[in-house]
Amino acid sequence: MTIQVVVWGENVHEQTNKVVSDLYPTGMHGCIADALNSDPAITATTATLQQADHGLPAHRLAQTDVLLWWGHAAHGQVDDAVVDRVAEQVWAGMGLIVLHSGHFSKIFKRLMGTPCNLTWREAGERERLWLTSRNHPIAAGLPDHFELENEEMYGEPFGIPDPMETVFISWFQGGEVFRSGVTYKRGAGNVFYFRPGHETYPTYHDANIQMVLRNAVKWAHNPAKRIVDPTAAPNVPVAGALEPIVERGPRLHHDGEEGLR
Amino acid sequence: MTIQVVVWGENVHEQTNKVVSDLYPTGMHGCIADALNSDPAITATTATLQQADHGLPAHRLAQTDVLLWWGHAAHGQVDDAVVDRVAEQVWAGMGLIVLHSGHFSKIFKRLMGTPCNLTWREAGERERLWLTSRNHPIAAGLPDHFELENEEMYGEPFGIPDPMETVFISWFQGGEVFRSGVTYKRGAGNVFYFRPGHETYPTYHDANIQMVLRNAVKWAHNPAKRIVDPTAAPNVPVAGALEPIVERGPRLHHDGEEGLR
Amino acid sequence: MTIQVVVWGENVHEQTNKVVSDLYPTGMHGCIADALNSDPAITATTATLQQADHGLPAHRLAQTDVLLWWGHAAHGQVDDAVVDRVAEQVWAGMGLIVLHSGHFSKIFKRLMGTPCNLTWREAGERERLWLTSRNHPIAAGLPDHFELENEEMYGEPFGIPDPMETVFISWFQGGEVFRSGVTYKRGAGNVFYFRPGHETYPTYHDANIQMVLRNAVKWAHNPAKRIVDPTAAPNVPVAGALEPIVERGPRLHHDGEEGLR
Amino acid sequence: MTIQVVVWGENVHEQTNKVVSDLYPTGMHGCIADALNSDPAITATTATLQQADHGLPAHRLAQTDVLLWWGHAAHGQVDDAVVDRVAEQVWAGMGLIVLHSGHFSKIFKRLMGTPCNLTWREAGERERLWLTSRNHPIAAGLPDHFELENEEMYGEPFGIPDPMETVFISWFQGGEVFRSGVTYKRGAGNVFYFRPGHETYPTYHDANIQMVLRNAVKWAHNPAKRIVDPTAAPNVPVAGALEPIVERGPRLHHDGEEGLR
Repeated sequence: MTIQVVVWGENVHEQTNKVVSDLYPTGMHGCIADALNSDPAITATTATLQQADHGLPAHRLAQTDVLLWWGHAAHGQVDDAVVDRVAEQVWAGMGLIVLHSGHFSKIFKRLMGTPCNLTWREAGERERLWLTSRNHPIAAGLPDHFELENEEMYGEPFGIPDPMETVFISWFQGGEVFRSGVTYKRGAGNVFYFRPGHETYPTYHDANIQMVLRNAVKWAHNPAKRIVDPTAAPNVPVAGALEPIVERGPRLHHDGEEGLR
Repeated sequence: MTIQVVVWGENVHEQTNKVVSDLYPTGMHGCIADALNSDPAITATTATLQQADHGLPAHRLAQTDVLLWWGHAAHGQVDDAVVDRVAEQVWAGMGLIVLHSGHFSKIFKRLMGTPCNLTWREAGERERLWLTSRNHPIAAGLPDHFELENEEMYGEPFGIPDPMETVFISWFQGGEVFRSGVTYKRGAGNVFYFRPGHETYPTYHDANIQMVLRNAVKWAHNPAKRIVDPTAAPNVPVAGALEPIVERGPRLHHDGEEGLR
Repeated sequence: MTIQVVVWGENVHEQTNKVVSDLYPTGMHGCIADALNSDPAITATTATLQQADHGLPAHRLAQTDVLLWWGHAAHGQVDDAVVDRVAEQVWAGMGLIVLHSGHFSKIFKRLMGTPCNLTWREAGERERLWLTSRNHPIAAGLPDHFELENEEMYGEPFGIPDPMETVFISWFQGGEVFRSGVTYKRGAGNVFYFRPGHETYPTYHDANIQMVLRNAVKWAHNPAKRIVDPTAAPNVPVAGALEPIVERGPRLHHDGEEGLR
Repeated sequence: MTIQVVVWGENVHEQTNKVVSDLYPTGMHGCIADALNSDPAITATTATLQQADHGLPAHRLAQTDVLLWWGHAAHGQVDDAVVDRVAEQVWAGMGLIVLHSGHFSKIFKRLMGTPCNLTWREAGERERLWLTSRNHPIAAGLPDHFELENEEMYGEPFGIPDPMETVFISWFQGGEVFRSGVTYKRGAGNVFYFRPGHETYPTYHDANIQMVLRNAVKWAHNPAKRIVDPTAAPNVPVAGALEPIVERGPRLHHDGEEGLR
């Protein structure tokens, strides 16, 4: 059974900007899905903002092992109900890979609990990614550094929680640095943020970038059966305590009652 | 200048449940504020759900060094605008201490990015808190363990991100364990979650608990001037790059334009 | 290709204490290796203190994907050169699983940088392990809690660095708690400490414990090619800088010189 | 009572290299101590390799709140007994600030448990430090970035464990990046590594660098009374268990016995 991946693309600039549509005739999501599908262990399909439920109905997410998210112009148009649904699936074990301008997506901010802000400059300058965690699975097969000749700059301070692991840090020609590859765990779900990918440059055609994405999918995949109710807060009745105890003192709740939320 | 503290109390069960009002005649928030004010370095006042803006208007939060949060029955009644305001102030440097059933408060879930769920039992059983980080500032003056003879049980798995530091772990008579004191950083703000404090027990009258709260206030206090706009994502124009660069390739944005969010 | 595992056993009490030898006729290491070999994805062999190089010559370690370490009475007899060798292999990508009293092994203290101390009691009391990270790969197939009816107690504070992830916390009948399953990364090597396993009890015959060990082997396995020199600190000559620079100012070193260490 | 600081300097190149002695006539340690003493809350003295016990006898360390460590040419000459002593004091609560080439000091490698290696180039190139954690106490009063016009380059991958917090990341003119300011906790001791400080450049005369050092001293200072025996592993006798238990099963140890280490 292959790893089931959905590449979510906002699909706005592909429709409105000739530079972008020329670079990515099938959409950035299409290009990314193709790159993933070159690996026989992965089966990637796409979903876009414009589809019903943004292409992410509950039954599809339930069968998605890893979701990739690229958005930029239309973060505000993403339905909160879909964001809630994605967050619950991450907590239940779905992997999530957030790309580039997705740092400001509702789902990334929701899962980080921080502003996820940064500084930026669109000048087609050189970016060099340095590996900070040698032999990390996400860096398998990559050299200690590689370059993108034209990229948008993102600069520190990057408003994220301290990561579980920092895998890449970028050097920019104009003088900035940025934590470009960072991992988190949210519930049972593995989360990876990966910086490169501005829509007016051919970043997703780059072989190293494609390798990172394939590696990240495998890293993010949690093969365990999805947690059925990842937000449940079950009451443990006194009679069911693992060690025998006698109830003491006053109570707010009756036996078998739901807790307050 | 003392540390300016606001103790936020939901103030619901104090009004509706005689056990609670007998234990806490001035409210749990009142009891906690008194405990904090016994330290000359701290000036604590209170705010409640029922006040305009829940007692947390912008100008008050701006002058609050550390906010404590106790809620249980009425998490859903807390205005989202106030939650946003508190989150922004935390990111800007305000300390936040979340107490007991506040694990399910909107503000804690917002800052954690996880369900913050757990198991629970209201049986007045014995809880023993073990220090897991010796000489941590939050544990100053405390022994390696101390007991609460009657507490509600919270059990693992606790749906939080792996903490920056685990300071306390609880043992429960009925057989469970729980990470009872955990620290996080969110933006410039220090966040501490502290488990004990069920409303039908005299927990906030306990000397050790009061000492933890005073210590936690001092730990959470970030004396730096509050960050003015903690969510800003400023553009760095090409002409202002720290290293001289020449713009290359196509652009989405015009000079001086706001970024997309 | 299966995962190549070596189970290192101190093999002292097995030779001197009838209780231990009756429980573990082929040694604790033998019992553990058998449990691992029940999984077709794993090939486990054993090594002991008494062998030349403690059974861990360089060429064997170089082909070991994951090393398990159980020691207690003879930590001081382990040759520092072997400890150095194991540490280097971990940094180069070998997984390491440290068991029970191995908390005081030279290799664990070396990799943690802390005292790794704790409190303890040998009373055959009940231990209950709680899962703190649902669906963690190390907990695959396990319930949220499970019990060992007779174990030695280890209590907090446990002198370790805050873990990358806390996977299990133990409850003890006598009133203590302990972080029983914790993960770390050291160089390219994944490290897992797992608490249970006192030699006078049948812990390694327990089905849940065996499942944790098999899971942990898979989690700790880094399939990347081992890093050749994990401690190298190469000089980058000025002429080889990725961005052209002109040397300025005085120097300590000559071109091509080794750095100081 | 001021914070008691000892600045430890290897004091080798100051004696043998005219560039260094001209820049630092009282030694790098002397320059650093002066910078710290400009803050009335700090009392800094110095110690050097050449002194008896390297200037760090037990009674002096016991009264030292924070130790700074600069070494380069003579790491191997530092007595292991002194390294042990310093490590124990850190675990007991002494703060430690490791500077520049101290990344390869015995004490830093001991506390990290990793190789602490990196790449390097001595070309007097420009270094720009970026703040990655806004309003962190160690960055108090500093801008979001500042420059050193001439520094040695250190490049990633830096062989350290993932830090508790990353405070600074450096950009280098020649194309590298480096995690230049990272925090750790080891036992009760706060540890900060700070990259800049090559001996042939006037780095420790820089106002921003001096401010970082003063801030770091205050951050690293743990005011709690030093832990008396930070490596103790006390036995808890059955009769002294916090919850009454009955001893069961076979034992290795006799009552009151020391544990095995």
